[in-house]
Amino acid sequence: MRIDIITVLPEILEGPFSHSIIKRAKEKGLAEIHLHNLRDYSENKHKKVDDYSFGKGAGMVMAIQPIEKAIETLKAERDYDEIIFTTPDGGLFNQREANSLSLKENIIILCGHYKGIDQRIRDTYITKEISIGDYVLTGGELAAAIITDSVVRLLPGVLGDETSALTDSFQDNLLSPPVYTRPAEYKGLKVPEVLLSGNDKLVDDWKHEQAVERTKTLRPDLYKKYLGE
Amino acid sequence: MRIDIITVLPEILEGPFSHSIIKRAKEKGLAEIHLHNLRDYSENKHKKVDDYSFGKGAGMVMAIQPIEKAIETLKAERDYDEIIFTTPDGGLFNQREANSLSLKENIIILCGHYKGIDQRIRDTYITKEISIGDYVLTGGELAAAIITDSVVRLLPGVLGDETSALTDSFQDNLLSPPVYTRPAEYKGLKVPEVLLSGNDKLVDDWKHEQAVERTKTLRPDLYKKYLGE
Repeated sequence: MRIDIITVLPEILEGPFSHSIIKRAKEKGLAEIHLHNLRDYSENKHKKVDDYSFGKGAGMVMAIQPIEKAIETLKAERDYDEIIFTTPDGGLFNQREANSLSLKENIIILCGHYKGIDQRIRDTYITKEISIGDYVLTGGELAAAIITDSVVRLLPGVLGDETSALTDSFQDNLLSPPVYTRPAEYKGLKVPEVLLSGNDKLVDDWKHEQAVERTKTLRPDLYKKYLGE
Repeated sequence: MRIDIITVLPEILEGPFSHSIIKRAKEKGLAEIHLHNLRDYSENKHKKVDDYSFGKGAGMVMAIQPIEKAIETLKAERDYDEIIFTTPDGGLFNQREANSLSLKENIIILCGHYKGIDQRIRDTYITKEISIGDYVLTGGELAAAIITDSVVRLLPGVLGDETSALTDSFQDNLLSPPVYTRPAEYKGLKVPEVLLSGNDKLVDDWKHEQAVERTKTLRPDLYKKYLGE
């Protein structure tokens, strides 16, 4: 899978993409991630990429020309399955969307910044607008990092333990059960006895009960989905 | 405001915190952000911070000892308003939570990794569990970056244009209206004529209508909140 990210601040993304799972996926040849600095596509002599918005209003808007050129340049090189724009008014990102994107071959993620991008880009080029949550960020770079991380870890062969992603929260609309590790007692704090019983059936039943209970208490909305309501 | 972040991968966070708004907030002395490598608190001779979970199950769990020591060390130095754990089964983060956290003085954010942290830490130390959305990430580092970014930009004096944050999406349960910048026509694509009219009243009315229309179409759930339902 190939992900091209268009941004005014590629420096923000270098750290997140040079460590951990993403690094491993790149090294194994399972994911290619390319950062493109939007300024490189500006035809303005000062490499400007933003301008005042039409109509009064605070803040700057990302201009049409550099974005159009960046996208057209990439599209001339290969076909893209999706051209994604990260924006607080996009569709809410969730695990189902991550699963679906992990099946694509080539995607572009355009990071918003300032007060947004010229609407004509959204109308003309963007195939999918994604919000990672109901909050406002400085820019779309961290949203692009989130999407990339959540998608790349799902690619076959990326996670070391093949079964690991299957037991994640949300895959079956249940939160994960609580987890414990050694020591069994630490400064008076003990792990539940059932986990030390060595009885797999009892342990599995306990984990499932805990997962259901936690979902019911913490996320009644997910619990309804789990019940199929 | 001071934010202490406890993580096994501080390298991931250095980029996001060294640029843009966060950098400016630090330089102006409006926010202090400290990264703490969890391994520095491990009493294990190999600086191990994780271990197999009790009961069968794939994946490793962050152990109690290093986390307990990291939190106790920080707490001995100052009082904390919140000790936050980033986890997919936490309460969903939103703009209201960002506003509320921006009023705090000192917070700790503990980043989860692997299959989670020993539940005894959650039961004993954590005052708030936050999920940034219904998707699974490699670790809590990007979630901590999201929380930090969304909170720090709200601190008075951080954004260059004082009015900028007030016109963000979500502040009044409305999405932002579409924005446009120069040129007024680009390769045949034109901006709406009203924006070129020079009539502030007409422009404001148009923006409000567009904001309401977009919210109604794209986010019916938010629209209900806007109507006070």
